[in-house]
Amino acid sequence: MAQSLRVGIAGLGTVGASVVRLLDQQKDILAARCGRAIVVTAVAARDRTRDRGIDLGGLQWYDDPVALADAPDIDVFVELIGGENGPAKKAVETALRAGKSVVTANKALIAHHGEALAHLAEERQVALSFEASVAGGIPVIKTVKEGLAGNRISRISGILNGTCNYILTRMEKESLSFKKCLKQAQVLGYAEADPTFDIDGYDTAHKLTILAALAFGVDVNIGAVYVEGIRSIDAFDIRMAKKLGYRIKLLGVAERSESGIEQRVHPTMVPDDSPIARVMGVTNAVNIQADAVGELTLAGPGAGGDATASSVIADLADIARGLVSPPFGAPAASLGRSIQEPMQVHEGGYYVRLTVADQPGAAASIVTSFADLGISLESIIQNRSEDAAQLDPAGRSGAPVPVVVITYATTEQAIRSAVDKAIAEGYVVEKPQVIRIERE
Amino acid sequence: MAQSLRVGIAGLGTVGASVVRLLDQQKDILAARCGRAIVVTAVAARDRTRDRGIDLGGLQWYDDPVALADAPDIDVFVELIGGENGPAKKAVETALRAGKSVVTANKALIAHHGEALAHLAEERQVALSFEASVAGGIPVIKTVKEGLAGNRISRISGILNGTCNYILTRMEKESLSFKKCLKQAQVLGYAEADPTFDIDGYDTAHKLTILAALAFGVDVNIGAVYVEGIRSIDAFDIRMAKKLGYRIKLLGVAERSESGIEQRVHPTMVPDDSPIARVMGVTNAVNIQADAVGELTLAGPGAGGDATASSVIADLADIARGLVSPPFGAPAASLGRSIQEPMQVHEGGYYVRLTVADQPGAAASIVTSFADLGISLESIIQNRSEDAAQLDPAGRSGAPVPVVVITYATTEQAIRSAVDKAIAEGYVVEKPQVIRIERE
Repeated sequence: MAQSLRVGIAGLGTVGASVVRLLDQQKDILAARCGRAIVVTAVAARDRTRDRGIDLGGLQWYDDPVALADAPDIDVFVELIGGENGPAKKAVETALRAGKSVVTANKALIAHHGEALAHLAEERQVALSFEASVAGGIPVIKTVKEGLAGNRISRISGILNGTCNYILTRMEKESLSFKKCLKQAQVLGYAEADPTFDIDGYDTAHKLTILAALAFGVDVNIGAVYVEGIRSIDAFDIRMAKKLGYRIKLLGVAERSESGIEQRVHPTMVPDDSPIARVMGVTNAVNIQADAVGELTLAGPGAGGDATASSVIADLADIARGLVSPPFGAPAASLGRSIQEPMQVHEGGYYVRLTVADQPGAAASIVTSFADLGISLESIIQNRSEDAAQLDPAGRSGAPVPVVVITYATTEQAIRSAVDKAIAEGYVVEKPQVIRIERE
Repeated sequence: MAQSLRVGIAGLGTVGASVVRLLDQQKDILAARCGRAIVVTAVAARDRTRDRGIDLGGLQWYDDPVALADAPDIDVFVELIGGENGPAKKAVETALRAGKSVVTANKALIAHHGEALAHLAEERQVALSFEASVAGGIPVIKTVKEGLAGNRISRISGILNGTCNYILTRMEKESLSFKKCLKQAQVLGYAEADPTFDIDGYDTAHKLTILAALAFGVDVNIGAVYVEGIRSIDAFDIRMAKKLGYRIKLLGVAERSESGIEQRVHPTMVPDDSPIARVMGVTNAVNIQADAVGELTLAGPGAGGDATASSVIADLADIARGLVSPPFGAPAASLGRSIQEPMQVHEGGYYVRLTVADQPGAAASIVTSFADLGISLESIIQNRSEDAAQLDPAGRSGAPVPVVVITYATTEQAIRSAVDKAIAEGYVVEKPQVIRIERE
């Protein structure tokens, strides 16, 4: 049997501890599958005394991840520190420069510096693998890079953030407010103390742009992603979506258009009988549309120590088997510029909720505003008796009532203009809610 | 750029023609992703004159696939002839012996001779790849072999035959009989003129045993699979399943038990809100349960020229990148014997339909038969007024009526004994129907 693959791991949080434990637990299976052993020989973390539930005896300990990255007696550096800059970036660069392969779960690092790091890895002919950076335990990067190698992908979309999906699921199932669900998610450890990164869509955007680069052969460009989070989603919207046969999900969508690549993250109404609508709780799912295969859907755990470790170990196994390919499939130098399709030209159906003073003429004014922009309405719902009562228990006339408009396919530009026009008419008394609909 | 990978294709049916067309169509993407071109240089097929909608000009033509397999100027032999023996087997053996990598979509060949062929491939250090043999365009073999390399898999199951799923879907949606749906599937090209292989479960069994070998590191052993098809499924069963909150699917299930590996293919009642129940029409889906990742589900096209070609090309791309690993993940010599868990010890819930003469005491006799075997019943349904009328429009007393029994978890052995006992009581007038329930 060939020499062992010597692994150094920087960062011993939940994922790091799982990697150490699983590599030991599955060592026989892995050795059989890879033709050589995969052995952790060194680790770097701040606190030497913390009990992580794993045996670190016999491992070399580094306080500085950069020193570990440069250590001559490791073959692969596993970066589980996190953060787009700082020690994570420095350590990864150091390892690549030293001719070591790198495995990372760091989506921020790859989304911001993926291309530069890919150049570095390709120069040294080592691997830079990041399966764990997107959709936790789902092997979606391997699927896109290798499993669909012969496909021209036209669209890749999915539920890529378990925190948001958990919150939206609970809001629906238990008719709770966004705030209440967020608090419960924090108590249960599904959301961070500062949840901004997850609930405002940035986490999804990072993952999406990595997938887009792989799927379309373009540069990773986090700046090209339109991002909207789920903070504005109201219990009323969730209820209304249900009534209309939809469910609200935070989707990341990257698709080819005629003029470029559209990348967007926003709350989306999807038909409640679609596969993506059925993905509940912290589960992630990715849907891929491509010319040869047609449509493929992968669903599984988007987070969690062991699930994420599963992806880290898959990357290590590929490296142990000697597989080194360009990090983004095609060589970094060949990646095209991603042309950002401005959100204004996005086409689709829309759900628009306008809260108006309950006066004669209010609904008519809204309908006119949309008609003037040439937008065809599928329905307009003014459910005063029940839904308005939720906003104003007295149900008195003149109190604000929500008017919901569902449109046929139109453009973002037209919707924005129609909403502005409706506001100018003077009836709208609250910030309008606009949710995009994906019917396919 | 490295030398082109020269491919010889034997068999130019739907899949073969798609492979030729797609390799040409995606040649730029593939060259970028693999670092070298993949070029079809020779083909073997019987009829030189047939119009296949592809340009075969400039390709070397062989009438004999074995001669192509032995040709010195190809690097990879793609076998798309089909059949477990005959020219397919001979050609694949010839190619491997000549030190050429082989890609095949032939499930029967791999299910019957996979291990011997793997030994041959490993001896010559060439690839033997068969992604296209299971679940069409879904990259499930890559997922199990590579994506979940660090997992101990406990269960792999799925809808692996599009023909059966199409028939069951139509039976449910349109309340049609099995015979009528089969005929329509044949007209639409979803079922063969001789549909035995699909509808009696053998096709699913072939695919399942390949997955089991990969997932559990055991030999491919088609003889170890318990097989039951969908011929006996009645419109009544479909209706009753729906009433009870289930859907009937032909599932292949391979799972570790304490004493061995259970491999079984049979119609199964699954909860109608489970992900697998939602897979309709010709779509395939595979669910994997494993220690690190938890649960993973892949859904996509199980057949079709382009979708299957997508998998063939993914295998070619891996070979072009220089990836050669043992065909079943671990080396063939290390594969354990698969210990066939006899179906008698299978445990689970059951749906049993017994058609009895409508006489006092019939239902009581059935209940007693099950109670005597210690089987707990979740429900017993004797729906005379409506369902019996379907069997006997006159609805007269004494006419046969179906009695449906749903059990809690018990063993196959107990069910078989209870059914025999009920028959012995003399009330049962038709062949009993037994359908296993998977509640997880």
